[in-house]
Order: sequence, then C-alpha cells, then structure tokens
Amino acid sequence: MSMKPTIPKGTRDYHPEIVLKRNYITDIIRDVFTKYGYLEIQTPSFEKRETLSGKYGNEGDRLIFNILNSGEKVRKADIKALNENKTTEFINSISEKALRYDLTVPLARYVSQHQNEIKFPFRRFQIQNVWRADRPQKGRYQEFTQCDADVIGSDSTYLEHEMIQMYSNVFKNLGFQKIQIKVNHREILSSICRKIELNDNFIDFVTILDKLNKIGSEKVIYELKDKLGLKDKFCPLLNQIFESNNSSHALSLINEQFIDNDNSKKAFSELKTLFDLTLNNKFDVLLDLTLARGLDYYTGVIYEVVSLTNSEIGSIGGGGRYKNLTERFNANNLSGIGISFGLERIYHLMDDNNLFPDEITSPNDILVINFGNEFIHDISIIVNELRTERNVSIYPDFVKLSKQFTYADKNKYNYVLIYGKEEAEEKVIKIKNLKTGDENKHKLDDSIKNYKF
Amino acid sequence: MSMKPTIPKGTRDYHPEIVLKRNYITDIIRDVFTKYGYLEIQTPSFEKRETLSGKYGNEGDRLIFNILNSGEKVRKADIKALNENKTTEFINSISEKALRYDLTVPLARYVSQHQNEIKFPFRRFQIQNVWRADRPQKGRYQEFTQCDADVIGSDSTYLEHEMIQMYSNVFKNLGFQKIQIKVNHREILSSICRKIELNDNFIDFVTILDKLNKIGSEKVIYELKDKLGLKDKFCPLLNQIFESNNSSHALSLINEQFIDNDNSKKAFSELKTLFDLTLNNKFDVLLDLTLARGLDYYTGVIYEVVSLTNSEIGSIGGGGRYKNLTERFNANNLSGIGISFGLERIYHLMDDNNLFPDEITSPNDILVINFGNEFIHDISIIVNELRTERNVSIYPDFVKLSKQFTYADKNKYNYVLIYGKEEAEEKVIKIKNLKTGDENKHKLDDSIKNYKF
Repeated sequence: MSMKPTIPKGTRDYHPEIVLKRNYITDIIRDVFTKYGYLEIQTPSFEKRETLSGKYGNEGDRLIFNILNSGEKVRKADIKALNENKTTEFINSISEKALRYDLTVPLARYVSQHQNEIKFPFRRFQIQNVWRADRPQKGRYQEFTQCDADVIGSDSTYLEHEMIQMYSNVFKNLGFQKIQIKVNHREILSSICRKIELNDNFIDFVTILDKLNKIGSEKVIYELKDKLGLKDKFCPLLNQIFESNNSSHALSLINEQFIDNDNSKKAFSELKTLFDLTLNNKFDVLLDLTLARGLDYYTGVIYEVVSLTNSEIGSIGGGGRYKNLTERFNANNLSGIGISFGLERIYHLMDDNNLFPDEITSPNDILVINFGNEFIHDISIIVNELRTERNVSIYPDFVKLSKQFTYADKNKYNYVLIYGKEEAEEKVIKIKNLKTGDENKHKLDDSIKNYKF
Repeated sequence: MSMKPTIPKGTRDYHPEIVLKRNYITDIIRDVFTKYGYLEIQTPSFEKRETLSGKYGNEGDRLIFNILNSGEKVRKADIKALNENKTTEFINSISEKALRYDLTVPLARYVSQHQNEIKFPFRRFQIQNVWRADRPQKGRYQEFTQCDADVIGSDSTYLEHEMIQMYSNVFKNLGFQKIQIKVNHREILSSICRKIELNDNFIDFVTILDKLNKIGSEKVIYELKDKLGLKDKFCPLLNQIFESNNSSHALSLINEQFIDNDNSKKAFSELKTLFDLTLNNKFDVLLDLTLARGLDYYTGVIYEVVSLTNSEIGSIGGGGRYKNLTERFNANNLSGIGISFGLERIYHLMDDNNLFPDEITSPNDILVINFGNEFIHDISIIVNELRTERNVSIYPDFVKLSKQFTYADKNKYNYVLIYGKEEAEEKVIKIKNLKTGDENKHKLDDSIKNYKF
C-alpha cells in the first residue's frame, strides 16, 4: 500500500500543541472538581448494548456506535431479520456491546451496579471520550471529550449553589473575563406554560421559547399564537418575562405570577436560596425565565453557561437537577445534580482569545547540540539536573551544526546548549537564547542553580 | 428493567482510588517523557479497518474490535459472503472502522499522514487506551492503557542509551528499588543462531530460547536438540551464553564468537556504545544474550524491564529499534526506536509493594459539617481560601451531626470543619483531626495561613 493513509471522517489527530492545550483545560477542570471534594471515576469505553439502548430516544439510539461481535460469533447474523427489514434485531444478532454515547448513562449504570459500596451523597467526576455517529461536519466530531461532575443522593439546595461556584472557579482559573451563568427551573417553565393556558403543549411551548435568542421575542410570540393558539391577553405577561433581565426582577415576577401549586412554590424557594447563597459571584449569574434545555431529563434547576465575548459560539457549559437517574436500572431510585463543560468550545474560545499561557504552547525548551557521544557523555550529569526543572532534548545525531540549528529554529526551541571541543577545553558550556541571540557561558563545575537563562 | 446492570466481560470500572493511582503513574511517565523533549500526541480511538488489517498477523487481526457501520449502512450486509463462509468479506460489508489495537500502527499512520508537517527526528509519546478481543480472564482485559515513547527518523545509537535513561528515570520516580533493564540485539541472536547452525529455524530457535526463565537451560538445550536437531558440539557455547550474567562478559563473548558479518559487527558496536554511555545507571542494565522479544518487529536493540522483587509478574516494560515503521503506508520509509511501559503490571507491583504515597490514595481531606445554609454562607470565603491548597467537601444536607460524622469516618476524611451556632457566637471555627481526635479553634478573622492542621 503506497497510498497516504488517512483517518475516518469525523475523527481527529491531536497534534502536540493541541494535546498540551487540551490537557491544560482538563487539568484545571480536574483540579477544581477535586478541590470541591469530587472523586474521579472512569468507566469502560463500551457498555452492553442493553445498558445504552432506549436511553437516548430514537434519534440518539441510531447514533450509538455498535461493536461487532468478534471471532466466529459474527456468523450468527440473523439474515431473516435483515431480509424482513428488522434492522434492530439484525444488529442484536451480531453486536452485544456499544461505545459510550455520553457519561450520564454510564454514571447511572455505575451507581446502580455499585450502590452497596458507594457512600452517598456521592460526588463524582468523569473526564472521558464519548462517541456519536453524527454526520461529520465542521466542528462536529464522532469522538469528543465530556467533563461531567455530579452529586448523587442529595436533594439539598446548597448543591445548586455549589454548581455555580464550580463553574465560576473553573472559568476564572481558565482566564475567562466575561461569562454568564444562566439559571432557570423546570417547574417555573411549567407554571408559565399553565398560566398562559398552553399546558397541553409544554414541549412545543419550550421548543418555540428556545428560539428566543435567534428570532427575537416578537417572532416567538407570533409563533406561539400561530402554532399553539396563544391568547392575546397573555402577551403582556410574556413580554414581562422576556424583559425581566435581572435576577431579582425575575424572582419577583415568579413570586407575583407563577406560584400556583406546591411544585412552583418549592421551585421559587429553591431559586431564592440559590440566589441568596450566590452573592458576589465573580461572574454574572442570571435567572433567565426563558432558558430551556434538557427538559427530557432535568426536573429542577437548569443551567447554561455562555461567553459574553463570543456568544455566537453557544453554550460552553450546561447542567441541572434530575430526579430519576437510576430508575431505569433498579428500584432504589436516586436523584442528583450535575454540570458539564463543553471542552471543544472552551478550547476554541480560549484559542481565539489567546487565553493559553505561552509556556503551555512552547514545550520545546532546550536543545543540546550533538558534537558526538563523548561530549554528550561528559555533560550528562548537568543535563539530568536541568531535567529536574526543564525540558531538555538532545539532538540525536552528530551532524552538521547548521542542520541542528535549523532544527532548533523550526521547532521553536528557546535555547540551545553547546558543548563541543572548544567548550570542553575551556571547561564551560554555552547556552544560547534563540530569541535574543544572547549567549552565556557557565563553568562546567558550577551548580546549575547558578545558571541564569 | 429492575435487574442490576453490569459491564461487559473483560472491562472494568475504575473506582476513585484506582483512578488516582493510575493518574499518579501516568503523570510521572508523562513528566519524564516531557523532560526528555518528547511531545504528546493523541490519535482517534478508531481507525479505518484498512489501516489496521494485516498489521498484526492472523491472530492479531482476529482480536481487533470492528465497529458496525451506523444507520442504514448496516443493511448492505453481504449475505452471500456470509453463506459462503467468507467471514472477512462479510465483515467488510458492514464495518469500515475498527478500534485501535495498539499505539504503533496509529503512530505509523500518523507519521505517514503528516510526514510533511513533522520535523524529524520526531520524539513523540502517547498514553491512550487500546482494545483487544482477547478472551477475558483474571488480569487480562479487553481495554487497557499503553504508554509509548518513540523517536522517528534517526539511527543514532545515542537513542539506544536515552531509552535506558528514560526507563531508569520513570522507575526511579515511581519509587522502584530493584529493577533490571535487559538488553539484547536481534542481529546477535541471528548470529548465535547461525553459529550453532540453526539458521533455517530462527523463529523456532527464539521461541525455545524464550522459555529459558521458565524451564531452565537444561531443558532449553534438550528442546533445541530434540526439535531442531542442535548438534552436541554447540552445547558448551550455549552454556557459555546462558552463564554470561554480566554485560562486559557478554560483550566479550560476542566479540570472540559472534561477529561473523557486517550486521553483527555493527550490532556489537552499537551495544558497546550503549554500555559505554550507560555507566553508573541507577538500575542494573544487563546485556542478556538470551533475551528475545518482538522479533517480528524489532530489527536492532531490544529491551525488557523486569522487577527483581516480583519477577514472577513478568515484563513491566519493553521496546526496541525498528527499521520499517512506515513501509506499509508509503515509500518514504522511516525507522525509529521506542519503549513502552506496562501500566497494569506496574500498578499491581506498586500496589503490592506500597509504593503509592498515602496522600494520593486519600483525597478526602476536609469535610465541612452542615449546620444550615446560613452558616455555610458565613464561612464561604474561608472555605474558598482553603480550596486554593486543599480539598474541601461541604456535607450537602443539614442533617443530624451523627450522620455527618459517620459519613466523614466512612469516607476517611482527615478533618472535619465545624461552624455552627456555638462557633458563630464565639466567632471561631473548629477543625477536628479525625485521626488523632485533636480539635483546634481558629478565629474567624484570622488568616488561613495561620491555621495549623
């Protein structure tokens, strides 16, 4: 085969600079999660198909990557099912495992399987890849990394606040200046829907509401009238909601208009507690009564994080409270709350806004010029001492100096270390700064602590 | 579904303590690789099947996990091929991608694909999972992590030495006391094989030789006679090899007996250079003329690392020089040298010998007892200051103290932080050491730098 090999569509190679930047982000996320007492777990890349199937709706199920049974097992293919167009049964006959589609179902499976060993409330985080058979397109990949933190087994509203703290801490540590953490509550959305007499159309209502940022309030109201028959008399109230652009305003509005049963009363009290605890936050925390996300899953507070400098990129974090994590796996049902970080988008925002520190993206620090093995041998102790702090590559081949210096330039090394015949006679090593051109001599027997470069 | 869910056979959940220990190992490996100037890359979990197939021999090919084409594509199954027992063709009709089987073929593909962007010599490392459809059994899993470092595009013997340095550095940093790095050379094995007139049976010779540690020299010689017709007159020479248990002895033996052509001459010179450069190594580096591994792949020096305290666990690292990394992908062939670390075995050795530092395995540091939101709110600044250095969990629910203290005990927290009504009145926080029972008071307005615990 002499053709240039390539990778499958929808996948990527991460080159060194990209890996360094991605590790920089995940290290910061991991550190914050850890400082808040979350414990990292990892689950297998593949789960049994029965664990995953039926958990993501029809569309989601179709996007799961199934793994072909290995060896002779594949010969048990159910040809009859194939001929009868029973695709699922055909797949069942040749595939028992599938790649992880998200980190939530594996968490539910993990908690259910290990329920007796886990001490609840259980704070866990997970930073792992997931795979989806989405049609590949610009910025959308079939393999990507999710970063999730969840607390299982506590209903305390304190946790609603902790999630906001962790968001703030991570984005602050990443160097973000302007983000907004939007908050809403599923029960308030329900109550609004009841109030404007669309309660038979909750999902449609929410779907239209979700277009607000894209199409504006006028068109949203028009669609609600046109498609769901919204009555004119509710338009002023809806406009009040759309215009309630600060949290205390929104809280009053809920208090005045949307407490109609125990659930909405509880929701109000949860939001109130949350905002009472979340004073003086580094970033803007906004109660946005129009925020709607993940409502097939979240049952209480919902979150969305956006960057105010590049809002067009969309959500860079999301999460919420859910009641029924483990209900599909066992009777002993557990609720929880969780957030996740959109690593890919955070990466691109940070790249666009130069938020990665320089030293992260230039790992090539010192190149030792090769004057032959005997010279390398003579300075090996110095090189190893340098390596306790810095990255030191030895050019492997004893070739022309010009070639080695070109290599140093092209690979953006900061320094070259020179020790050849001349230096050996003089008992010095030379360190040349490739950016400034400055050259320093250091005596061979001097401690590297005294080296200045 | 109320059945307890489980994971597929051959896979594992990594619980928090295991993740911490695994990260501890891979962080040290990553740090050493980086300090030597190696750059981390990551490749996709799946490659095109055409990239992987034919690279691992028949047995290996059968152990590759194939991914079923998604959506309607699966309906293109070649039933005729299935009926005619043409399993590979049937698989080809429903699967275009497969999970990574190792990190070497992806490296070859990466280097071939990006040859024009890479500046050679290219030092790269990769720490990623691989998948193999091996029959699950104790200690053997279908998903595991490989840690590889390679240099592509240089033939310099200096690199033979660098590999040994990196092994030593990693195992030293991991806290190993007694490891042995065994070295041999493929060309010396060939030469031995020629000398004892078994050169038509190189692979068989090497296979039998490889049993030396298990069955002993007598039985090896017996097998060589019995199966390959080894002549009696060569037994003394073989015994000399088996007994050459130090490197200078082994080098002399090569020099006297096994330099029979340019290749073995070069091999001797490479080994000589390697041992000249590798003086005063922290660990034992042994030229072992019986070491045989990866000979379908390695063309020069080969390495194997074993623990002398637990030698029964087998190799904890291996590697070697290879000539033909990219030959199957393109004409512009590149050679290289590489080593890998056996993460799973290193983990078990370290666990058995208590080499993990205590602080790694006890991440639960401080638990803040919950006396209600108002108290948590009052000390939030202190808690956040503590979090710059330490892990602080807040018990999420305001429940009975006994329950919270039991939780602290069961989860092995080092300290609890107490701030309730009494402490608020006294304007102090109390920190109780759960191991000693000692309790310290700190004034609320005191800097946490003065806290002693």
